[in-house]
Amino acid sequence: MTNPKFQTLTLPRGFKGFVSNVGIKDSTDDLVIIAADQRCASSAVFTKSSFSGPSVVISRAHVADGHLQAVGVISKNANVATGKQGTADAEEFAELVAELAATDKSNVLVASTGVIGVPYPMAKIRSGFGAIAVSDFDTDVLALAKGIMTTDTSPKVASATLKSIQGDSVQVVGIAKGVGMIEPDMATMLTFLFTDAEVPQPELDAGFRSAVDRTFNSLSIDTDTSTSDTAAILASGAAGPTDSEELQQAIEEVCLALTRQLASDGEGATKLVVVTVSGAQSDEQAKLVAKSVVNSPLVKTAVHGADPNWGRIAMAIGKSPAVGIDPTKVRIGFAETEVYPNLDTGTLNYLEEYLLGDEVHITCDLGLGNQSWTVYGCDLTDGYIRINADYTT
Amino acid sequence: MTNPKFQTLTLPRGFKGFVSNVGIKDSTDDLVIIAADQRCASSAVFTKSSFSGPSVVISRAHVADGHLQAVGVISKNANVATGKQGTADAEEFAELVAELAATDKSNVLVASTGVIGVPYPMAKIRSGFGAIAVSDFDTDVLALAKGIMTTDTSPKVASATLKSIQGDSVQVVGIAKGVGMIEPDMATMLTFLFTDAEVPQPELDAGFRSAVDRTFNSLSIDTDTSTSDTAAILASGAAGPTDSEELQQAIEEVCLALTRQLASDGEGATKLVVVTVSGAQSDEQAKLVAKSVVNSPLVKTAVHGADPNWGRIAMAIGKSPAVGIDPTKVRIGFAETEVYPNLDTGTLNYLEEYLLGDEVHITCDLGLGNQSWTVYGCDLTDGYIRINADYTT
Repeated sequence: MTNPKFQTLTLPRGFKGFVSNVGIKDSTDDLVIIAADQRCASSAVFTKSSFSGPSVVISRAHVADGHLQAVGVISKNANVATGKQGTADAEEFAELVAELAATDKSNVLVASTGVIGVPYPMAKIRSGFGAIAVSDFDTDVLALAKGIMTTDTSPKVASATLKSIQGDSVQVVGIAKGVGMIEPDMATMLTFLFTDAEVPQPELDAGFRSAVDRTFNSLSIDTDTSTSDTAAILASGAAGPTDSEELQQAIEEVCLALTRQLASDGEGATKLVVVTVSGAQSDEQAKLVAKSVVNSPLVKTAVHGADPNWGRIAMAIGKSPAVGIDPTKVRIGFAETEVYPNLDTGTLNYLEEYLLGDEVHITCDLGLGNQSWTVYGCDLTDGYIRINADYTT
Repeated sequence: MTNPKFQTLTLPRGFKGFVSNVGIKDSTDDLVIIAADQRCASSAVFTKSSFSGPSVVISRAHVADGHLQAVGVISKNANVATGKQGTADAEEFAELVAELAATDKSNVLVASTGVIGVPYPMAKIRSGFGAIAVSDFDTDVLALAKGIMTTDTSPKVASATLKSIQGDSVQVVGIAKGVGMIEPDMATMLTFLFTDAEVPQPELDAGFRSAVDRTFNSLSIDTDTSTSDTAAILASGAAGPTDSEELQQAIEEVCLALTRQLASDGEGATKLVVVTVSGAQSDEQAKLVAKSVVNSPLVKTAVHGADPNWGRIAMAIGKSPAVGIDPTKVRIGFAETEVYPNLDTGTLNYLEEYLLGDEVHITCDLGLGNQSWTVYGCDLTDGYIRINADYTT
């Protein structure tokens, strides 16, 4: 399960991590805090769900000034649909994180995933904090990534390095969890990036939002949007300034690697599905078509069955809300192999072989323009049904 | 499989049916023609897919004047993505139907479902028509409903009767097929209603569209919109005029009964799922929320697992694109039993029992206004995965 290349990956300079078990559900780690030595230029995006929980509401307010100093995560309980008590508990959790990080509560982002409708066990959380010594920190990124997991089958970690303008090494490190379930209740994505680059907050914010749009916002496991989705980046500045484009590239690289790991570990998934729509008149048009294909249950089951069923891809293009599609101009392929309108039946055996692999790339050219968009998903399997139907709350 | 109450159901006065096997795929009936003695006031709605097939394109043009005299259906071949040859074949099919019905081609609606990307076997179709004698008609509605099936597990038939203004009996009879697959390629819904009522075409058109909106357009098996969906009504007028409201009620009743049959026979389905959203500010708001719930894979799998997991319903309400939802005003229930915000844990055993039934009714009150909308779907099961992943083209 453990990827050896991450075993010694540590947080960038200026950050400390704390991981522990406070007994939310079982004996696995369920409390993770990552604190910076000082306030960081930060950016965060959250679920658009109208049923978002108090963690999202509070964190959205705390990051509004573009700065954070600490992130606190509780796993195995989402603290969603818990009423006024839930809001008070989330505020108290933020307060406890702030104390540990020696900062003001308004610099804390809190996040939580897991069972919904059940209040936090606050006594356990308080005594868990009581047991943490500030000197007890852990910068092992893999341990932090494991601590935020719910039913993920593997931790998601990615990193990129670049040079600062002074020639020092700069890190961008990211962790993510999801799309797993708990007992099972709700699919949820959390992702946090940390860098020691020094970067003006508006630049970090714009760059992070752009990266999120092409990566996490282009990921779909099962079309169900969580009430708790949170993506954030904190830049400690400890390594000094960098070239803007190189930093942006590093952020995009980490976001993309985490997105692909999330898609591959989708519930019940056996394959990563990547859909690229090119030849579009606009990014929006390309994205609508790509999402329609990657979310189609019929396309997802065909991929699962290793069936090069391009008719279902045509159907999914046709049902997309994108306007202006002209079926006579559309070309459909698997990776480099065109299947519509020109299907070389000699390639069918090759395609069935290709579809048995771990990653399937579907390509659609709309023949209308020059814009393109890529989205990430997975196949739909018996495993998904089993995970989500056979357990009961 | 055969419901005895439909065994003797016949077409309304003024209509004749023809059913035969021309060998499209196997020895089951695959050619159905329903012809009226004269042109009928008619209305039809079609798929919005931008990849719609030539049958849809041709039929849309033929019904534009509000009149049809015959409907021709080929099952087991969709004639979609078949290029110019497909258009020529669909035109020829319409021509053959017109000859049999002794009418002009412009009065013919054609429809077809099944495998895509494969041209019609025109020689077989031509010789099939050659073998039909005009005197050989069949008005047994069940046989017609079976003839349009692809992989449906049961024929869908519904009827309602009312009195004409002169006191005669008036019939509204409907047949439908889907959402089945063939070999498997594409989920597709076809439905045709026939009545001997005499009704002005604009009134029929408005009434049918309104009924379709609340029934077939409120049905979702798996979110995948077919390239061939067609719903049409033909009124022969043979029984004379009726009360407008009574006729509308009869049309709605038939559409609703067919919609419920379609949802219950959804691929792999074991339960009919009905979602009613009330307390909305507008029909549109209610429909968006209801569709978000009925289409949620997590809600569908919870229902399959007989798990009263209201957290997933809250999530699905939250992710809906409807604006103005206030989670503090939302109430969620199963049938008459509220589960959020007031869950009487004493009812949990009852709810698990209730969810084991054939039909599950989910109710959401938004607490914002007086509009409501009901949608129809089914659970998501291993059967769906098996049907759509394990077969290959």
